[in-house]
Amino acid sequence: MPVKTSSAIKNPLSIGILGGGQLARFLVEKGQNLGLTMWVLSDSKNDPAAQVTNHWVKGNPNDSNDISEFLKNVSILTFESEFADVNLVQKAATKKLQIFPSLSDIKAFQDRFLQKTLLETHQITTSPFLKVSSTDELNRSGEFFNYRYVLKKRFGGYDGYGTFIVKNKTDHLKIVQSITDFKIGFIAEAFIPFEFECAATFFRNKKDQWTHTPLVFSKQSQSKCDYVYGPIDHIAFNKMKKKIKSLMKKIDYVGALTFEFFVNGNELIVNETAPRVHNSAHYTLDALSQDQFTLHLKSVMNWDLSIPIESRSKQFCMVNLVGSNENSVNIPYDVSGTLYWYGKTQNRSGRKMGHINYTSNNLSAQSLLKLAQKERNRFKI
Amino acid sequence: MPVKTSSAIKNPLSIGILGGGQLARFLVEKGQNLGLTMWVLSDSKNDPAAQVTNHWVKGNPNDSNDISEFLKNVSILTFESEFADVNLVQKAATKKLQIFPSLSDIKAFQDRFLQKTLLETHQITTSPFLKVSSTDELNRSGEFFNYRYVLKKRFGGYDGYGTFIVKNKTDHLKIVQSITDFKIGFIAEAFIPFEFECAATFFRNKKDQWTHTPLVFSKQSQSKCDYVYGPIDHIAFNKMKKKIKSLMKKIDYVGALTFEFFVNGNELIVNETAPRVHNSAHYTLDALSQDQFTLHLKSVMNWDLSIPIESRSKQFCMVNLVGSNENSVNIPYDVSGTLYWYGKTQNRSGRKMGHINYTSNNLSAQSLLKLAQKERNRFKI
Repeated sequence: MPVKTSSAIKNPLSIGILGGGQLARFLVEKGQNLGLTMWVLSDSKNDPAAQVTNHWVKGNPNDSNDISEFLKNVSILTFESEFADVNLVQKAATKKLQIFPSLSDIKAFQDRFLQKTLLETHQITTSPFLKVSSTDELNRSGEFFNYRYVLKKRFGGYDGYGTFIVKNKTDHLKIVQSITDFKIGFIAEAFIPFEFECAATFFRNKKDQWTHTPLVFSKQSQSKCDYVYGPIDHIAFNKMKKKIKSLMKKIDYVGALTFEFFVNGNELIVNETAPRVHNSAHYTLDALSQDQFTLHLKSVMNWDLSIPIESRSKQFCMVNLVGSNENSVNIPYDVSGTLYWYGKTQNRSGRKMGHINYTSNNLSAQSLLKLAQKERNRFKI
Repeated sequence: MPVKTSSAIKNPLSIGILGGGQLARFLVEKGQNLGLTMWVLSDSKNDPAAQVTNHWVKGNPNDSNDISEFLKNVSILTFESEFADVNLVQKAATKKLQIFPSLSDIKAFQDRFLQKTLLETHQITTSPFLKVSSTDELNRSGEFFNYRYVLKKRFGGYDGYGTFIVKNKTDHLKIVQSITDFKIGFIAEAFIPFEFECAATFFRNKKDQWTHTPLVFSKQSQSKCDYVYGPIDHIAFNKMKKKIKSLMKKIDYVGALTFEFFVNGNELIVNETAPRVHNSAHYTLDALSQDQFTLHLKSVMNWDLSIPIESRSKQFCMVNLVGSNENSVNIPYDVSGTLYWYGKTQNRSGRKMGHINYTSNNLSAQSLLKLAQKERNRFKI
């Protein structure tokens, strides 16, 4: 049965996104291609997503009045970040509003403790972890992990923010001294030595159709995605996929769900998950027949996910363009990859300013990556 | 030397487009990816291009005041249509404004008589033609072509509008009677029997770099693009390319220039040209490593055009979604191709409402087209 959009031409189906960053920007662009009206709630009209729609609403995505007003425009709400204030959204939402992923799923994934517990419940390998809610618990965790562990805030951490690596007892004692407020809560994770990291994004719709992007090699630098290439394979990926599929079905998850893995020999260990589209899958904009943003929207709208996702090249890679200072920016005019510049109004050290996608049928992964890095070095950001 | 966009982060390079249709929409989207600020002048905030930028200006692209006001925002002006009023734009333009393609080139291509004359000057095969400015000239043309010819308005014709096919003396006499006003001017062209039609789009920048899309089979229905598939080859294409390259250099053409050809055995005969991006190259959004909109913008900004344009699939096709009535629209939710819906607020018979791109490495051109047509038939528009 076709989705009725008779509504959809004079009053197209309206999707709202809380937040106006680059993930929202791509969701907006891809939604517009599908004939959807894409609404964005964000602080500034210069936000990356605000620039690409005439349905931007000025407001604070964490203010209950602003959310309420915003939601009057939309029939489906989705997210570019897992840090939405679930209680505020719950209060602001009418009964008619559809929210994907569900608020209970957002809640489970935005809390690192619940997230890891969920993984364990589904026998998905992840590093051992302990909840840390007091100095006492922190000290016991230190001892338990033999003073070699990673301490993470339960809420709001990303790209290394809110993460502390403890390598010895001295580090541990420093951390113990520096943390006075345990209200937000922490988890301590075993430090996992690994050969490399990789990632994949999974999609599910309400009618239990399920699909995913290929596994990709993912290089982090200073806890931030540096580059990605693929496709790669791993002996444990098939088994892992089945478990993820079963988890998503069990919690009736709808939308994109990204997994980042550590690789240790034959083992795939989940490092982190994010209930959303993800930097590690930006390559899909060029390398696959369906990109992650379109797939997320199709999931959310309960459109068909059974169509095979085809590769458009044998090799692909993506390099991030990350700000290194506050200076103005120089973009070289002769990049051979496909440039995505996010239109941020300020260059800042460590800030993701854009990315470049590369595809090739001739070059090896290494050669393609070399080319990409060489071109990236010519950006002054 | 990198393009300086130090300017470009707090004050990104601003490109203006006159008109807000689907061609402008794609130019806007691709320009945003390159980090440009894309301004659109159009009548309604619901126009396809107005929906995808927060730099839309309400106004009439044929009103001199509106153009003047609009041009204050932009440093480069380009077009989505060849029907710009060159004199108005000329008057409104400051000396600092860059305009690509140049107004003299727009002028040459918007007039079918000058366009055909330009082709002849460069030994580019096109059908024989006569200028028709009076009933007398119309009668002489009828006789010259033995009452089998095509009469076209010199200005403003597209998708068959402004075109009259004359098959015999009766048709001719009807036309003679019906036309009372010759002010706009006509040309009469020999009726060219042909096996099929094909098309390609060419790009040139100010530093004389030049590139082009592959030749594609192009099917017209009721004088409107119905579908396109490719890549195809033709024995005369290489020679034709050289002539087109030389023409573009001679007139210092900057931007996209599209050629539509008739195929007759070993002969390629130019049917029409358009000084802009084109429906017949919409497939480039998915099938090539660089799409026509990005290539047009790179041309206009004098960015590098030497990067090879690579195929992302062995076969591709594009089918247009054309309105058949005034009713509301049903979009099927399970299309396997990549849907581009233009967001027009009214469905109208004959109106281009969207298109779908297909790519494949396994299917033959015919099988892929069959699949595309089958899926298209499920749209209710």
